[in-house]
Amino acid sequence: MSILIKNVELNKIKQDILIEGNVITKIGCGIECEANKIIDGSDKAAVPGLTNGHTHAAMTLMRGYADDMQLMPWLEDKIWPLENKLTEEDVYWGAKLACLEMIKSGTTLMVDMYHHLSATARATNEMGIRGMLTFAAFDFDQPNLSEKYKKKLEAYYQSMSQYSDRVKFAMGPHAIYTVSTGLMKWIRDFASEHQLRIQTHLSETKGEVENCIQKFGMRPVEYLKSIDFLGTDVSFAHCLYLNDDEIKILANYGCQVVHNPASNLKLASGNRFRFTDLKNAGVTICLGTDGTSSGNNLDMYETMKLAALNGKVAWDDPTLWKAEETFAVASETAETLTGFKTGFIKEGYLADICLVNLNLPEMTPNFNLISNLVYSANGNCIDTVICDGKVLMENRYVPGEEEIMKKVREIATDMVRR
Amino acid sequence: MSILIKNVELNKIKQDILIEGNVITKIGCGIECEANKIIDGSDKAAVPGLTNGHTHAAMTLMRGYADDMQLMPWLEDKIWPLENKLTEEDVYWGAKLACLEMIKSGTTLMVDMYHHLSATARATNEMGIRGMLTFAAFDFDQPNLSEKYKKKLEAYYQSMSQYSDRVKFAMGPHAIYTVSTGLMKWIRDFASEHQLRIQTHLSETKGEVENCIQKFGMRPVEYLKSIDFLGTDVSFAHCLYLNDDEIKILANYGCQVVHNPASNLKLASGNRFRFTDLKNAGVTICLGTDGTSSGNNLDMYETMKLAALNGKVAWDDPTLWKAEETFAVASETAETLTGFKTGFIKEGYLADICLVNLNLPEMTPNFNLISNLVYSANGNCIDTVICDGKVLMENRYVPGEEEIMKKVREIATDMVRR
Repeated sequence: MSILIKNVELNKIKQDILIEGNVITKIGCGIECEANKIIDGSDKAAVPGLTNGHTHAAMTLMRGYADDMQLMPWLEDKIWPLENKLTEEDVYWGAKLACLEMIKSGTTLMVDMYHHLSATARATNEMGIRGMLTFAAFDFDQPNLSEKYKKKLEAYYQSMSQYSDRVKFAMGPHAIYTVSTGLMKWIRDFASEHQLRIQTHLSETKGEVENCIQKFGMRPVEYLKSIDFLGTDVSFAHCLYLNDDEIKILANYGCQVVHNPASNLKLASGNRFRFTDLKNAGVTICLGTDGTSSGNNLDMYETMKLAALNGKVAWDDPTLWKAEETFAVASETAETLTGFKTGFIKEGYLADICLVNLNLPEMTPNFNLISNLVYSANGNCIDTVICDGKVLMENRYVPGEEEIMKKVREIATDMVRR
Repeated sequence: MSILIKNVELNKIKQDILIEGNVITKIGCGIECEANKIIDGSDKAAVPGLTNGHTHAAMTLMRGYADDMQLMPWLEDKIWPLENKLTEEDVYWGAKLACLEMIKSGTTLMVDMYHHLSATARATNEMGIRGMLTFAAFDFDQPNLSEKYKKKLEAYYQSMSQYSDRVKFAMGPHAIYTVSTGLMKWIRDFASEHQLRIQTHLSETKGEVENCIQKFGMRPVEYLKSIDFLGTDVSFAHCLYLNDDEIKILANYGCQVVHNPASNLKLASGNRFRFTDLKNAGVTICLGTDGTSSGNNLDMYETMKLAALNGKVAWDDPTLWKAEETFAVASETAETLTGFKTGFIKEGYLADICLVNLNLPEMTPNFNLISNLVYSANGNCIDTVICDGKVLMENRYVPGEEEIMKKVREIATDMVRR
């Protein structure tokens, strides 16, 4: 299978892009060759599929179910009771909707953490995007739960080989305040043994940091260092409350940090994500949406704008989070975060490419494509999505989308009545 | 001319809406009557056209031309030199693009402030939306400029009767730091004499407030009170730096305040807009995009989300800016701000109605339409736009849109070479 995209704007000029199999094999002006499919790229720009560095895909099922509440009543009275009712089938359809939404907004790779991992794996596999999928493990310091989760994680690890190479298993201990030191260490060892990556929530709220100091006598990153948890294979979602020493430690160990502005702002977790300090220390910064029950959508274009605008005002400096670096954070960090060779439109990279419609008011005029993408566009400006060398969306249509939305509406209606 | 919208979601149930002339005349289930046009509203929700309470429409011409800079170099080195080159024809096409963008994102009323007012009036008139249009007057304390602007304002006032009732003239002194006390007073008197509304920039930056105290010995609102400028016909854009006394004064005089989150965040002007205090004092709070050179797009759906999310985090309270009140701020305030009887879908109101496509991932599931609109949707979720009883967009297509974008691209290319 080969695809030739003709006359598309790429790096400020009109070029052609040849895809063979699942790889970008040639980029240049006037490529002449046979291809199974020719795509007319005029009036379009080619951009890498974006990476949603942290989400809980199936929470699309709870979009808009509860908003505008304090964190704990929101979780305890609304989200958790509903989440406890979710079946494998519910999660499957919720994750399908999430994949659909990400495809329709130009995201081709997600890092997920949720229950019923095999449902999310099945959905991701079918929908055609890439996923680094983790199972949300937590034992609340209870040995029986700890053993249960170890068995689950081993079983999931074994089962993941049935899916495409696009679907990768990783470890997802929920957070240091829900997972015992014993289970954290076991997860770290299991990950090393099987060469799996790890993602966990870290320092999302001030309270979390205070609790950690109280319990372990150390700040969260120091605690994780003390149990030999850190490495280039570990990423942390949120990290709103890091001090200078913690930033140094993360940089030394090559950990990645995933910033989730929509969720952090909406839950009022905080807005002083230390972009400049992390960047200067050399920490890889990624972007994510978090789940739709907190951030409400999975649009990484909107996420870029939220990150940049809030970064500027929070640090009182309009020159922070420049458009180019914001776009890079959402795209070029993919390989460091997940190991998938994607996030660039370059020969030899995986063919994960989106075409942006330039014939839209919000993309006009086109002085600076990256500025328009970060500050003016939203995910609906994406016209065509190719992932792993396959066309997932053309002219904004994804085959089967009606059934997914219908199914989720039915589940949502049923779910609240159970 | 009559339009019957059938089976559309409105106030949580499926209803029909009858429009006769430019007014909503009947709302109910199963309306049986003849109509010139029937619109199938299934899979759609009806929402009022939103009000963009503060913009500089023609600045679409400069979208993405300069970003990520400190305010003064951005203005002095980039925006003003380009702005000085703009012709009446440029502004006309820039304003047409702005109207197009607003139609395509569900906004049917704007409050504008710019140069070449007649170009913006012509564009608004042709595009079919409503505009309360002001001419940006400033004299920098120079009597000759002051006289020149008085003449211009009188001429514009006379010329505005040629346009539709949708296009309303108002006074737009630029700001207290660019307009002399003499011209401010003249504008206030002229507005009273001719029953015109007034909008001006106020307290957008800390520096502005400090300068005002230095120059007049008073804070900005106190100064405006001292020159008898305030009234129910006056609205202020920005108002990031009000103290308690100023809020009380604004409330006592019935002035309106227009919050512009995208611009305020991107320029790092500030993020502590005093929503709760203004609301509790009884001040009408509206929302705007500001010009696209600072906010980069004219999407009021995105603006609602930015306002709500930033309001929550800035005041450390996720219960602020609830979805319902955020939506109300962007819609129900229209009449107080502009005098146009719009912003509600109710019998007797002007027929300014948008239909939202519910068959989109970001609108699924539909637990709470308003939450989905504020927190998940963007302007591209709008399918159909009716303003003043006329269909401006159907199935996301606005007649003539290609020509507008083409023309603006040509002007943009030419503009930087002049």
